[in-house]
Amino acid sequence: MRPQEIIAVKRDGRELSRSEIDAFIAGVCDGSWADYQISAMVMAMFTRGLSEDEQNALTYAMLHSGEVLDLSGIPMPKADKHSTGGVGDKTSLVIAPILAACGIAVPMISGRGLGHTGGTLDKLEAIAGYDVNLPTGHFREIISKCGFAMSGQTADIAPADKKLYALRDATATVPYIPLIVASIMSKKLAEGLDALVLDVKTGSGAFMPNIEDSMRLAEAMVQTGRNFGVRTEAVVSDMGRPLGRYAGNTCEVYECVKILRNELLELSGPTRELSLELSARAIVLAGVENDLVSARALAEAKLGSGAAYERFAENCRLQGGDIDSIPTTDPFAGKGLSTLEIKAECSGWVERADALAIGEAVVEIGGGRIHAEDGIDFDVGFECFAEVGSEVREGDLLGVLYARTNEDADSVGAKLGAAYKISETPIEPPPLIRGIV
Amino acid sequence: MRPQEIIAVKRDGRELSRSEIDAFIAGVCDGSWADYQISAMVMAMFTRGLSEDEQNALTYAMLHSGEVLDLSGIPMPKADKHSTGGVGDKTSLVIAPILAACGIAVPMISGRGLGHTGGTLDKLEAIAGYDVNLPTGHFREIISKCGFAMSGQTADIAPADKKLYALRDATATVPYIPLIVASIMSKKLAEGLDALVLDVKTGSGAFMPNIEDSMRLAEAMVQTGRNFGVRTEAVVSDMGRPLGRYAGNTCEVYECVKILRNELLELSGPTRELSLELSARAIVLAGVENDLVSARALAEAKLGSGAAYERFAENCRLQGGDIDSIPTTDPFAGKGLSTLEIKAECSGWVERADALAIGEAVVEIGGGRIHAEDGIDFDVGFECFAEVGSEVREGDLLGVLYARTNEDADSVGAKLGAAYKISETPIEPPPLIRGIV
Repeated sequence: MRPQEIIAVKRDGRELSRSEIDAFIAGVCDGSWADYQISAMVMAMFTRGLSEDEQNALTYAMLHSGEVLDLSGIPMPKADKHSTGGVGDKTSLVIAPILAACGIAVPMISGRGLGHTGGTLDKLEAIAGYDVNLPTGHFREIISKCGFAMSGQTADIAPADKKLYALRDATATVPYIPLIVASIMSKKLAEGLDALVLDVKTGSGAFMPNIEDSMRLAEAMVQTGRNFGVRTEAVVSDMGRPLGRYAGNTCEVYECVKILRNELLELSGPTRELSLELSARAIVLAGVENDLVSARALAEAKLGSGAAYERFAENCRLQGGDIDSIPTTDPFAGKGLSTLEIKAECSGWVERADALAIGEAVVEIGGGRIHAEDGIDFDVGFECFAEVGSEVREGDLLGVLYARTNEDADSVGAKLGAAYKISETPIEPPPLIRGIV
Repeated sequence: MRPQEIIAVKRDGRELSRSEIDAFIAGVCDGSWADYQISAMVMAMFTRGLSEDEQNALTYAMLHSGEVLDLSGIPMPKADKHSTGGVGDKTSLVIAPILAACGIAVPMISGRGLGHTGGTLDKLEAIAGYDVNLPTGHFREIISKCGFAMSGQTADIAPADKKLYALRDATATVPYIPLIVASIMSKKLAEGLDALVLDVKTGSGAFMPNIEDSMRLAEAMVQTGRNFGVRTEAVVSDMGRPLGRYAGNTCEVYECVKILRNELLELSGPTRELSLELSARAIVLAGVENDLVSARALAEAKLGSGAAYERFAENCRLQGGDIDSIPTTDPFAGKGLSTLEIKAECSGWVERADALAIGEAVVEIGGGRIHAEDGIDFDVGFECFAEVGSEVREGDLLGVLYARTNEDADSVGAKLGAAYKISETPIEPPPLIRGIV
């Protein structure tokens, strides 16, 4: 069938057959579909809708457009955690070492930050020398040695997705759940997992700000994981505010290492809490413990004993990272950064610390990227001093921005000021975990 | 606004503003919108729909993406006829000379055949030396001299349409009325007309086979023409069967010359009849006569007196065509063609002579093109011996295909056989003219 004939099926709102979807994805990969035909098809899918069968067929075709990792030589259950992305969202660096310390192999393939959300690969590259471009063989070898490896997507993993995502980004066809599910799940399923825990963010800093949409996305991803024989759960977590203490790159690695070393626990409660929750669920799904209580206890024990930190240190060494390059006291010290302090304009309770505004401010001062080809300044970032719900007095520090120059800092001052709102009456912060699927 | 933001408006089913549509068409012309962005936008327009305001804005933007002919130096009313295309649809070659002979200037910009429908430019090029690539100045000069000129679209006329049409053709977004209207009308309105008669085909060989769709298309085009200040009417005519005696290129020119010379009238009744009907309407719209009866009489008089033929001969000379290259007896004789005779398998009445099948057969033997870059064999074609409704006896000739080789002829034999259907009971042929808008 010619591309036009397949496009016309979806254009007219009819259901695509599995073979039509296979032909579409094959055409994306081999170049026999032109970019303009692909984008027309994707827009037809967006506006006419995809059924669950079509979504499964699309995921399957995208998954099998590339290599599926064979980790059968590693005699451990395989599990991974995937987040839909947020601000200060750094749990991967805590969860992977915990799971590895629990005897679970974690083949974590991550992405880079884009827009206001950070990316695990960027954070890892803030560690001097850390190599996130691992060929498959080396990736597998590192997992065998320390229980986890963290790498970027190779050209062999779901190649259809790379092409499709770039076109979707340029044609306003990103925010449609079946396309998101196929994109995320085709990559995750290529990791050859037994178990997968999804962290679906909701709130201003999330890809899908609305809780109903986030729940629908979580349900669709969980169902798809299960359809493909992977034990899957999703936690819908709050991203109306940044997660934990820091948003940036070096500073987020610092926060994770502090958690792994059981230091400064008062600074990073939410990051630690969400990491433990997600770890516990992965431990149960991987079959290492039978219930969440025992799994949580195991995860805490691996943190408390330093076993998780040891895994992190070993992974760092194996992936070429210099662990001594990670700050041990103040992550912003000694870098000649300019600061901008955000203070409470009145006394009361913090009602809002807007993740989107804070995330955008960090990107604008160079801590993230607007275009995929932009470079990143690892040193800059934002430190949150007051959480949503906490009581503050007029003039108290709410947060501090660390920028490369005074001009950079000033350019986002108004945005950051507006990110905060103080209430005259006490505020009950929304729970960190909004739902479980 | 970035292309993505404008695409998102239509993606979500909202109405595009005039400035958003202007930005889209500007982006199509200056290359700032990528092809994949244009095709995504067009698919969103197709699936979400365009309002009448949006359709008008799109037509306006496309019209003004290029040059609008200034024919103010020619002191005559300006009129044109445009057909949505069909099989054996050759009336332009008869109508333009008739109107010119009535004192109406006809700046006819035509297209090439694509798929099963023929194109006026291809037919004209079947006349040895006839030049259809006229620069604007020369085009205007020829109109001044003989009353009409026939040319292909220059790069200056509605350039946005050329780009859009190529993308629509490749992405299954051609058959949507507002896009069709904007495409056709932006080019016709660029001719600087006072009056326009549209011949909207309906039936198997038409672009829109369904009568309701054809009527809707006719209404939308007429309304658009009037919105732009051009006196516009549409005739919806039958294209379930080929029009007239011949389908091909040289053979269709032959049929037209016979009509212009008042010869062999029995062969080409429908072509002559439709040409006179369309001419009469153009004559009234152009203000040359006040009513259809007088206009029809005038058109018949210009045919009968040979005045129309003289215009044709003069135009042919001015555009470099060798009128002596047009056959005067049998249009297929002396060319070494192979024939395939289609005979009645039983006695009865011709119920069907399917325009689509006959048109496709002519294309497949080289008389038309499947791809825009294909060449054309002007000599081949099909001659219809029995019209729908006529009584035939078993073994009577229904039609004859003239192909370059026996293999070509045989390859479409089954298709042509199936194009005809004989009824055991008398058949009332559908009227040639199905509606007037």
